[in-house]
Amino acid sequence: MYKYLDKINSPADIKRLKTYELNAVAKEIRDFLVQNVSKTGGHLASNLGVVELTIALLTVFDFPEDKIVWDVGHQSYVYKILTGRRDRFNTLRQMGGISGFPKRQESIFDMFGTGHASTSISAALGMARARDLEGKDFQVVAVIGDGALTGGIALEGLNDAGRSNTDILIVLNDNEMSISHNVGGLSLYLSQLRAAPVYSKIKEDVKQKLKHVPVLGDKMTRTIERAKEGIKYLIIPGMFFEDLGYTYLGPVDGHDISSLIKIFEVSIDIKGPKIVHAITKKGYGYGPAEKSPARFHGVDPFDINTGETIVHKNGKTFSKIFGEELVQIAEKDRRIVAITAAMEDGTGLAEFSKKFPDRFFDVGIAEQHAVTMAAGLASLGFIPVFAVYSTFLQRGFDQIIHDVCMQNLHVVLAIDRAGLVGHDGETHHGVFDISYLSMIPNMTIMSPRNGAELKAMLKFAVKHEGPVSIRYPRGYTNDEGSVDDIKYGKAELVEQGDDLSIICEGMMCNTVLSILEEIKRLGIHPDVINIRFIKPIDEDLIVSSIKKTGRVIIVENNVVKGGLGSSILQIIAEKNIKNVKIKLLGIPDRFISHGSQEELYKLCGLDADSIKKHILEMVDDNEQ
Amino acid sequence: MYKYLDKINSPADIKRLKTYELNAVAKEIRDFLVQNVSKTGGHLASNLGVVELTIALLTVFDFPEDKIVWDVGHQSYVYKILTGRRDRFNTLRQMGGISGFPKRQESIFDMFGTGHASTSISAALGMARARDLEGKDFQVVAVIGDGALTGGIALEGLNDAGRSNTDILIVLNDNEMSISHNVGGLSLYLSQLRAAPVYSKIKEDVKQKLKHVPVLGDKMTRTIERAKEGIKYLIIPGMFFEDLGYTYLGPVDGHDISSLIKIFEVSIDIKGPKIVHAITKKGYGYGPAEKSPARFHGVDPFDINTGETIVHKNGKTFSKIFGEELVQIAEKDRRIVAITAAMEDGTGLAEFSKKFPDRFFDVGIAEQHAVTMAAGLASLGFIPVFAVYSTFLQRGFDQIIHDVCMQNLHVVLAIDRAGLVGHDGETHHGVFDISYLSMIPNMTIMSPRNGAELKAMLKFAVKHEGPVSIRYPRGYTNDEGSVDDIKYGKAELVEQGDDLSIICEGMMCNTVLSILEEIKRLGIHPDVINIRFIKPIDEDLIVSSIKKTGRVIIVENNVVKGGLGSSILQIIAEKNIKNVKIKLLGIPDRFISHGSQEELYKLCGLDADSIKKHILEMVDDNEQ
Repeated sequence: MYKYLDKINSPADIKRLKTYELNAVAKEIRDFLVQNVSKTGGHLASNLGVVELTIALLTVFDFPEDKIVWDVGHQSYVYKILTGRRDRFNTLRQMGGISGFPKRQESIFDMFGTGHASTSISAALGMARARDLEGKDFQVVAVIGDGALTGGIALEGLNDAGRSNTDILIVLNDNEMSISHNVGGLSLYLSQLRAAPVYSKIKEDVKQKLKHVPVLGDKMTRTIERAKEGIKYLIIPGMFFEDLGYTYLGPVDGHDISSLIKIFEVSIDIKGPKIVHAITKKGYGYGPAEKSPARFHGVDPFDINTGETIVHKNGKTFSKIFGEELVQIAEKDRRIVAITAAMEDGTGLAEFSKKFPDRFFDVGIAEQHAVTMAAGLASLGFIPVFAVYSTFLQRGFDQIIHDVCMQNLHVVLAIDRAGLVGHDGETHHGVFDISYLSMIPNMTIMSPRNGAELKAMLKFAVKHEGPVSIRYPRGYTNDEGSVDDIKYGKAELVEQGDDLSIICEGMMCNTVLSILEEIKRLGIHPDVINIRFIKPIDEDLIVSSIKKTGRVIIVENNVVKGGLGSSILQIIAEKNIKNVKIKLLGIPDRFISHGSQEELYKLCGLDADSIKKHILEMVDDNEQ
Repeated sequence: MYKYLDKINSPADIKRLKTYELNAVAKEIRDFLVQNVSKTGGHLASNLGVVELTIALLTVFDFPEDKIVWDVGHQSYVYKILTGRRDRFNTLRQMGGISGFPKRQESIFDMFGTGHASTSISAALGMARARDLEGKDFQVVAVIGDGALTGGIALEGLNDAGRSNTDILIVLNDNEMSISHNVGGLSLYLSQLRAAPVYSKIKEDVKQKLKHVPVLGDKMTRTIERAKEGIKYLIIPGMFFEDLGYTYLGPVDGHDISSLIKIFEVSIDIKGPKIVHAITKKGYGYGPAEKSPARFHGVDPFDINTGETIVHKNGKTFSKIFGEELVQIAEKDRRIVAITAAMEDGTGLAEFSKKFPDRFFDVGIAEQHAVTMAAGLASLGFIPVFAVYSTFLQRGFDQIIHDVCMQNLHVVLAIDRAGLVGHDGETHHGVFDISYLSMIPNMTIMSPRNGAELKAMLKFAVKHEGPVSIRYPRGYTNDEGSVDDIKYGKAELVEQGDDLSIICEGMMCNTVLSILEEIKRLGIHPDVINIRFIKPIDEDLIVSSIKKTGRVIIVENNVVKGGLGSSILQIIAEKNIKNVKIKLLGIPDRFISHGSQEELYKLCGLDADSIKKHILEMVDDNEQ
């Protein structure tokens, strides 16, 4: 029971409150957030960091009449709670519950869906231009973190909006880090700004003073005269943004509600593009999260008192196994370098970065740059390993084609979170990579079914000249035993039988194997082929198996369109194999929402029961 | 016969020359360029702009020991001529001849291939990091235009390099325009720099002076003290770049060889990331190109005296028809807005931009931003049409998935230069779009076979709610007659027969139809299906046709993998249609080099003769 929060059902209920009451609301929300997220899991640190910011935005602006785009969107929990979704907040990220990101279909207060970083300025600029074309006058706000600001699309948007003369407010939520820590010249610059806690109103004073700035010397007169226009900005912070065409306001303490309200109110009167620079602290107000904001970026359910994760799973994550093995390999081969786009922890590269700081590059949220920078390293004989989530690698699609594959450079893509990822939902599923990589000439694609195979494939990848991808899912596995027969383009025949061919990739093989004994007891004996190489594909094995059985089921943790199944259909057509009964199992042609991985596999027909059903149907000759 | 140029066979021959001789070389190269490109066609204006810049780079640096990356690469002609490729220069862009872009396989002087804009900083930074890890000390140079600098990956690279402490030289070739004209805050900023023709050496004078800068007032003391560090840069230009961590040198006259040599020599002594800002003029030294640099960006063979294109083709380009029709539609519907990424002329939007300046947005080279900005406009009820080359749209892949299709927003992608484009070669072929768009849920994809169908499809696209793509090729067509039966997901049955089904998309249909009479004379009567909708596909018509004929040939101007053919294979599998003889024709799984479109179609088996051969093979039952 919360004194204030329980009564806030819409932004109107916020606007009624006085500052001291808003501060009380902030306190209640922090408690509410920690209580809930400790049960559901989710993004915590970033939301604790924007409590006051969100309250101030809701106080000053009139959403949904005014528009707001939350960059990345995992920091929109406070906004959701205060815009009518408090009572459903316990369903956060659960199947059928509210999303961990803004969703247009969830609420009229979510005007633009997000999930991937750095899109907010572009989306908001589009909205602002729509407003201007319609002659309306509402406000448009983009809230973007300093980490997301280094993403190429954010900088493209910043550049376009800067000269647009369009009224648009960018709230720079500067918490001095992206997901791990921030990198790049822009972050260095922001850290200088942070050290200058002067407020925008000083600007006017400065302008006055500058009327009397003395000339420094004869030869310099003209230069200085010109520079005056510049100096008036330079003395206050934000010159970089002013150069790009923005009115810069800040920095402001992002946990001081009344300062935030004041600065947002000022911003409304300023025409054109403007930036409010708010300094916040990730995890603010909850001890464990303040201490380890990176760990509390995205969390599983945890104990509130200790901050410790409650459920401990067996085995290791694929990410961890990848990271450990890469360290092993790198110790023996000094050409190995590792690259991350602000995902050092998530991708398992933390140990590598400590052991080989010179050979580790965190380029910030900048997947395009990461891919091409890797190509540059490879062009001079190094072996860059770019560890990246499948869904974020979509950002580097053109660079994979144009810079890596066209030049046939030896770049290794370690593609984590491939397939359905679970609670993060539709923006984060890595269900396209088989399709978007298979179409690219020169690309090799592997998929391991457990940790041991991942390690063997990584060893193979760093030895194989040319572009290589390894895709592996979110989740736990084991890396016991060793796999020593990874051969280029060769699949693993796990089980032999005459009744049908089951071709599967990665963890899907384990789902198939989990029902093997059961279907064998029913008298059905399949070939089970762990494909290992999605490209190039083991044509010989597949052709001989399908010719033998006349029936094939393909199972993949990827969209059916353009996926593994489609490669196999192509082989069947090219080899003119007749009379084959075929079933393609994979992600259907629609976006899949959030829920546990198990629930989503079932939803997509990729759970053991569904696969069994298809096997039984296929061998039932009456059905033919 | 050229007095100097004829004797320059490698950079060593340049280094021997005195300044007045280098100036003579520049003059000769301009003549050589105009003479050759007037015959071969190619990029002219940008190369005329970098003659002195290239000579100065070759004088100061030791390529290939030092490394250079030419951003976009269409301005690398002068470099190619002076690095041993003068005598082959008449084969430029011809099949088997030298490429219009840097290519690693073409010369050891081409260290990194380019073609798409904005990759040079990332690639160069990778090379510089490789150098540092190896403990070597060569120089690494990226040459990038002001237009390409607005691309997201360039800004990502600029940001990462800025804090890297890595020795890297970025030569900003500032010609005040990208391909059409420049946009964005950064360009506004650069135009201010240009107005300040001060040279880097002033910086030291300024620093001296600043030791004595007076304090402006009591309250301001501390602020000013801090700002001193800033002021010393501010008084000279380049503060923006200095903020990002660069030493800024310039601006320098990009047509003054001795100044360029001096500034490059200075740059070598400066540690860390640095920028030389050179002001050049596109088309410099050739009247017609100076007057119309945009027209002389990429040209067909032309008359040297008049600058007029020599060959006039019949019909109109698809681009022109698209542009005209969009104006027609926009006159009746004020919700239509047009977006380009620095390709106003190339995409046929020039007329639109004049008629509807408020509804036209040139966002610069920024395809990611263009897509998401379009989504923003669509989210508030506008109908944005983003006209873009197929190959460049690859940059917006993630945004199409994440911002447009996931939210099912009504954005129209007018995809020009789809399929093989000809002389621009492998970096520019638009042969992946069917595959990378088909896999995305909610996307509709159309392909017209002539101008009339393009117009009808565009009318359909602006009415159809949700994401819609229309792909059309580089080249000429006609827009006579009208097509009034474009129905969602419905193909056109152009010809009926019982012997086989030929399913084709776009212009490939015309190639098929060109041999129809001939094959009918041979007694072969096909169904010819112009698919029109690549997604969703006309399942009913396809299934009934294939069931009838038992033979199908699919012809597409796209890679086979994940393309139209694979969608049809999927239908055949899902519908369990047995005993079908199938042939997929499309771009094979390798990168296709440059040459005329006709030559390349032939190379890929997509010319009339090859298709005829496949038809004959298919109906030859002995072969079965």
